[in-house]
Amino acid sequence: MKIIADAQGGDHAPLEVVKGCIAARDEYGVDIVLVGKEQEIRQVLRQENLSDDRIEIVDAPDVITMEDDPSDIARGKKDSSMAVGLRLLRDGAGDAFISGGNTGALLAGGTLIVKRIRGIRRAALATILPRAGGVTMLLDSGANTEWTPEHLAQFGILGSLYMEKVMGIQSPRVGLVNNGSEETKGGADRVAAYQLLKQAPVNFVGNVEAREIPMGGCDVAVTDGFTGNIVLKLVEGLAAFFMGEIKGMLLRDTKSKIAAAILKPGLVEFKRKLDYTETGGAPLMGLCKPVIKAHGSSNAKAYKNAVRQAISFANSGMIQAMEAALSANPVPAAEELPVP
Amino acid sequence: MKIIADAQGGDHAPLEVVKGCIAARDEYGVDIVLVGKEQEIRQVLRQENLSDDRIEIVDAPDVITMEDDPSDIARGKKDSSMAVGLRLLRDGAGDAFISGGNTGALLAGGTLIVKRIRGIRRAALATILPRAGGVTMLLDSGANTEWTPEHLAQFGILGSLYMEKVMGIQSPRVGLVNNGSEETKGGADRVAAYQLLKQAPVNFVGNVEAREIPMGGCDVAVTDGFTGNIVLKLVEGLAAFFMGEIKGMLLRDTKSKIAAAILKPGLVEFKRKLDYTETGGAPLMGLCKPVIKAHGSSNAKAYKNAVRQAISFANSGMIQAMEAALSANPVPAAEELPVP
Repeated sequence: MKIIADAQGGDHAPLEVVKGCIAARDEYGVDIVLVGKEQEIRQVLRQENLSDDRIEIVDAPDVITMEDDPSDIARGKKDSSMAVGLRLLRDGAGDAFISGGNTGALLAGGTLIVKRIRGIRRAALATILPRAGGVTMLLDSGANTEWTPEHLAQFGILGSLYMEKVMGIQSPRVGLVNNGSEETKGGADRVAAYQLLKQAPVNFVGNVEAREIPMGGCDVAVTDGFTGNIVLKLVEGLAAFFMGEIKGMLLRDTKSKIAAAILKPGLVEFKRKLDYTETGGAPLMGLCKPVIKAHGSSNAKAYKNAVRQAISFANSGMIQAMEAALSANPVPAAEELPVP
Repeated sequence: MKIIADAQGGDHAPLEVVKGCIAARDEYGVDIVLVGKEQEIRQVLRQENLSDDRIEIVDAPDVITMEDDPSDIARGKKDSSMAVGLRLLRDGAGDAFISGGNTGALLAGGTLIVKRIRGIRRAALATILPRAGGVTMLLDSGANTEWTPEHLAQFGILGSLYMEKVMGIQSPRVGLVNNGSEETKGGADRVAAYQLLKQAPVNFVGNVEAREIPMGGCDVAVTDGFTGNIVLKLVEGLAAFFMGEIKGMLLRDTKSKIAAAILKPGLVEFKRKLDYTETGGAPLMGLCKPVIKAHGSSNAKAYKNAVRQAISFANSGMIQAMEAALSANPVPAAEELPVP
């Protein structure tokens, strides 16, 4: 197994990327291809006293920044670490690609270079959210703000396969995020998506209201990219708000500080549950090869976990299963459906 | 000041409505009109040993249930407590109306019976969300899933006036909930709403990402009813998830239980901050008279607080200010705007 990593992606590149990938190599026994500014990467290896055993370095002189337009990956920034890494993945030089760089560029590059699975109309960004008693996959969580019912139905199939084959959840419950549980809710396009999901080869549990997402009402929460962005960012903001309030509560006086010390193990576990560095990253769904988007502020631990996730994704056979599922059960266009 | 209350609205009607209104009468010195099944209301007064001082009871034989279609309020359920109460408000028999009943019916009834302020295109449901260092008004939080840029701009003006005149916040910061801070984000309709809000007589702070809502990035979060429903329900669900996790943490062993006892004052305060019964209810914005939607599961305390909120709303002069603002600064249609 060989994982390709964008050494220049994210806020702490290349240092944290390199450290995380080396840790993953040592812990999971995989080969690593680091793509980026070779001089800088070699400097990190020297400075951190890390061996370059089973590390391949592919020089890429350019970097996609957060300010770059996503389409630059196929135009002015063809020699960026992200574009070079995606071409290496396409050409079979590795089994999966991880990057902490510009999300839009990664999606555009994934679609243009790696390409979508035949029959998949849109790639989606899927995030793994903590929730009561487990995790929930939210997709699309920000890639597509324009969407059709067919996109949502395909996201449901993709998410179900990932949760089953990568996360090991049997018969994952797929829910459509909506503003009510009745099948007439959410406007014409969402009603059509509901009907498509009902016919799709997934365990569709119907509409889920947003309050059910953290309460565990489904394993795969299907939505459009605008709504998914709102959900994802609100979870982040509320987690920060809550942790701030709890901190205030634990530091309000000496007695509280003693209580905080007693509670420390539980607090650490709770914080860990909310910590994105534990889950690794967000898989891009619908591409012909596994691509993982690591959080922009990832540290070495987060990159190591992203590599672990990339290994599971590559090992899962999910993409082949999706290709098979699509040829057996292509998602019908909404206009072909019987009126409910 | 006289407040009209729907004695049959909500899960715990009429008992909790009556008790809450009586408590409000005694604490705030207002008169109360209870609309509902007179026999049942009188029975509650007797059973709870409450005086009917400054309480008027208006008999309404029918009840709008949660299963009724909202439009029933103007058709088959004209004699329901909600419809009768709204007509009393329209006719000047009281200064404000509160109901814990069917939200859709209250909005439909408010629009059809009380009517919108001249120039306002849609009424909106506004909820007050807890956040770091204060509260934020979210509107529309579920009334309108179909919307135009003009609706959102008007929601911004309405929310700003409410936060200023009812909640006492100077120059409230109005933000447009979006999937990015750039003014080109969120699709054509949201881009047009951005331009309208920029020209509106409010302190517009631009787009706010959802993570900024609980972090206090704005005092008024403007959005469409679908997105507003997602935000509101997700806040509810995450609060329940977090409280459950904290509870688990505090009960995991004897030592933790001791810590929990120490932390009790802080925990009570935190829970109170998240408690909808403290804020009272959600004002309906854009109607000619003040209408407050109390939470369906409201207890007496929540109804008492809803009455307090109705008093502030009626005293604020906000509706008159809105009428004045609209005649001075009508929101232009999006197509009249210069292209940004």
